[in-house]
Amino acid sequence: MSQLTAPVVWSPATREHDPRHEIWVGVATQGTEVATRVDVILQALRDAGHRLVEAPGHGDDVLRQVHDGELLEFLATAAERWAAGPYAELVGQDRVVPYLFPTPAMTAGLPVRRPVSVHADAGRFAYDTMTLVGPGTWEAARAAVDCALEAAALVGAGERLAYALCRPPGHHATPAGFGGSCYLNNAAVAAEALRGQGHERVAVVDIDAHQGNGTAAIFYDRADVLYGSVHVDPGAGWFPHVVGYADETGVGPGVGATRNVPLAAGTGDGPWLAAVGDLAAWVAQAGCTALVVSLGVDAAADDPESPLLVTHDGYRGAGTVLGHTGLPSVVVQEGGYHLPSLGTLVAAYLDGHADGLS
Amino acid sequence: MSQLTAPVVWSPATREHDPRHEIWVGVATQGTEVATRVDVILQALRDAGHRLVEAPGHGDDVLRQVHDGELLEFLATAAERWAAGPYAELVGQDRVVPYLFPTPAMTAGLPVRRPVSVHADAGRFAYDTMTLVGPGTWEAARAAVDCALEAAALVGAGERLAYALCRPPGHHATPAGFGGSCYLNNAAVAAEALRGQGHERVAVVDIDAHQGNGTAAIFYDRADVLYGSVHVDPGAGWFPHVVGYADETGVGPGVGATRNVPLAAGTGDGPWLAAVGDLAAWVAQAGCTALVVSLGVDAAADDPESPLLVTHDGYRGAGTVLGHTGLPSVVVQEGGYHLPSLGTLVAAYLDGHADGLS
Repeated sequence: MSQLTAPVVWSPATREHDPRHEIWVGVATQGTEVATRVDVILQALRDAGHRLVEAPGHGDDVLRQVHDGELLEFLATAAERWAAGPYAELVGQDRVVPYLFPTPAMTAGLPVRRPVSVHADAGRFAYDTMTLVGPGTWEAARAAVDCALEAAALVGAGERLAYALCRPPGHHATPAGFGGSCYLNNAAVAAEALRGQGHERVAVVDIDAHQGNGTAAIFYDRADVLYGSVHVDPGAGWFPHVVGYADETGVGPGVGATRNVPLAAGTGDGPWLAAVGDLAAWVAQAGCTALVVSLGVDAAADDPESPLLVTHDGYRGAGTVLGHTGLPSVVVQEGGYHLPSLGTLVAAYLDGHADGLS
Repeated sequence: MSQLTAPVVWSPATREHDPRHEIWVGVATQGTEVATRVDVILQALRDAGHRLVEAPGHGDDVLRQVHDGELLEFLATAAERWAAGPYAELVGQDRVVPYLFPTPAMTAGLPVRRPVSVHADAGRFAYDTMTLVGPGTWEAARAAVDCALEAAALVGAGERLAYALCRPPGHHATPAGFGGSCYLNNAAVAAEALRGQGHERVAVVDIDAHQGNGTAAIFYDRADVLYGSVHVDPGAGWFPHVVGYADETGVGPGVGATRNVPLAAGTGDGPWLAAVGDLAAWVAQAGCTALVVSLGVDAAADDPESPLLVTHDGYRGAGTVLGHTGLPSVVVQEGGYHLPSLGTLVAAYLDGHADGLS
């Protein structure tokens, strides 16, 4: 393994989020985004010799650059509002689950008000039925943001590589919406923090199996933060379904600052690493001076949430490729749900990234 | 009872829709929009001496003036697409239930494609999780449209009053969306049919307990179809939650052609009938020459779906008030879910309407 080790920023509060279920096509299924993910990753990174750093609390300034205040206020208060309502008593539901969504098909040109009841209000912010809010969700999501901010601060203080053990993940969280098991966009927060340190152009490279539609949306019209993602083709029926196609390349000042590389189901190391390499070359040539990696390890063959077939060596190789950019790097945890391999996949990636940097 | 009887247009196919459940905040609850509603209403109207007329098939021309072709195509094919998918096998779900919704919070400025998989595609059209599609849903909804079209045709042929036993109901169906137990907007179809008969200005008065956001959306920018609704205040936490407020009065050429009268929970006959009277006077003074009534009887005190406290006499009175406009009238069934009183409430309304006309 590499001589360079990374500070691993984590927080015990990230374990406090327990969504219990995902509601998928109206059925409560066992979720895979579980608190045990934190411990599995911690153990593997401790075993690999990385230093653990508990994230201190950070203020909301950067978070408010990324997300609308209404979303933050909703997430911070929703569990309490829900508990005060009749939902547990009426139908046995103790998590915040939306049922009505103000889609364009619904509102259709009518002026729209914010609903008063939390069960209707939830659909203004949650865009799917899988991403439940309960006691502890806000605390965990906010602690994950602190992990991202602390990792960015460590890089600002001179570390060449820092890892943020963010849980719940974040890359599907949009400026004003949450979904895809994500609530707050940790990677976008890290990118904004690096911008705030004086980096004039920051790259986010997303190697989670799914396109990070939240990060894409946050930076779609901006030239100062590049977003590149390799992921399973949404056109083959994968989340986030409606976006993540190759021809989405940015708008306005952001034209050319977004890249999506959708891959077919069944794709393994070769084409996947080629795509990671293309994204690495792109962000390096574009003059970025800092890098955020959205590290989902759910592209691995064992993972239950995607049909990609990346190996441990593939993840190590992706780390090497991205480390070779030489850019100071904040690696932010996104997905990865196969508990027996999750920790070693993350460790393999970090080992590769450290190797690439050194 | 009145001497004037109304042709009651119905179709056995409207019984074929069986949504089984509504998914509310992630929990499958027993739906109240059941096929038995058809039989209860039929029996009461037969007992009251009205003539039953089975609706013949009508073409799609008027329906396509009201709804986008994509919605019609989705509804016509969704059950079959679902059955061809893995949903029953994976999670035991044999009805079409959405799980992802392209809300503004999700899409957030990104270009959006239509999903390929039916479980994601469903959220492009369905705006809530309560309005399930199964085998027979399209056939029933399309037959309900035939009922509305036939009732309008009978009025065009000289009847002063015709009743369409539409089930499923329709007033929450928007140009391109469905929800609130509604799939196709029967009342809007009736109004368009009357326009097509040469009526230059047609009124839709909606006395269902809930605002008909679909009908409102369809006609919001038009001066040739007035939409007036009295309903329980969405600001008190009632469906459709985000619209139905008094200050929504139309847009563009439609300014002034929409009226919403929200009432507090617990409102009974007095204020409710006053609101119906105001709407009747408004549409008569506005020069409308034909009337569509969206007859929901769920404002009745016994109804499980609303907190309004209208009585049988209240419904009879509403009929009298609207009949007094003297306008040729198509009465379209919307909600009403208390099976023991549903039929007699509808009969009371029609008796009042016939009285008012004669």
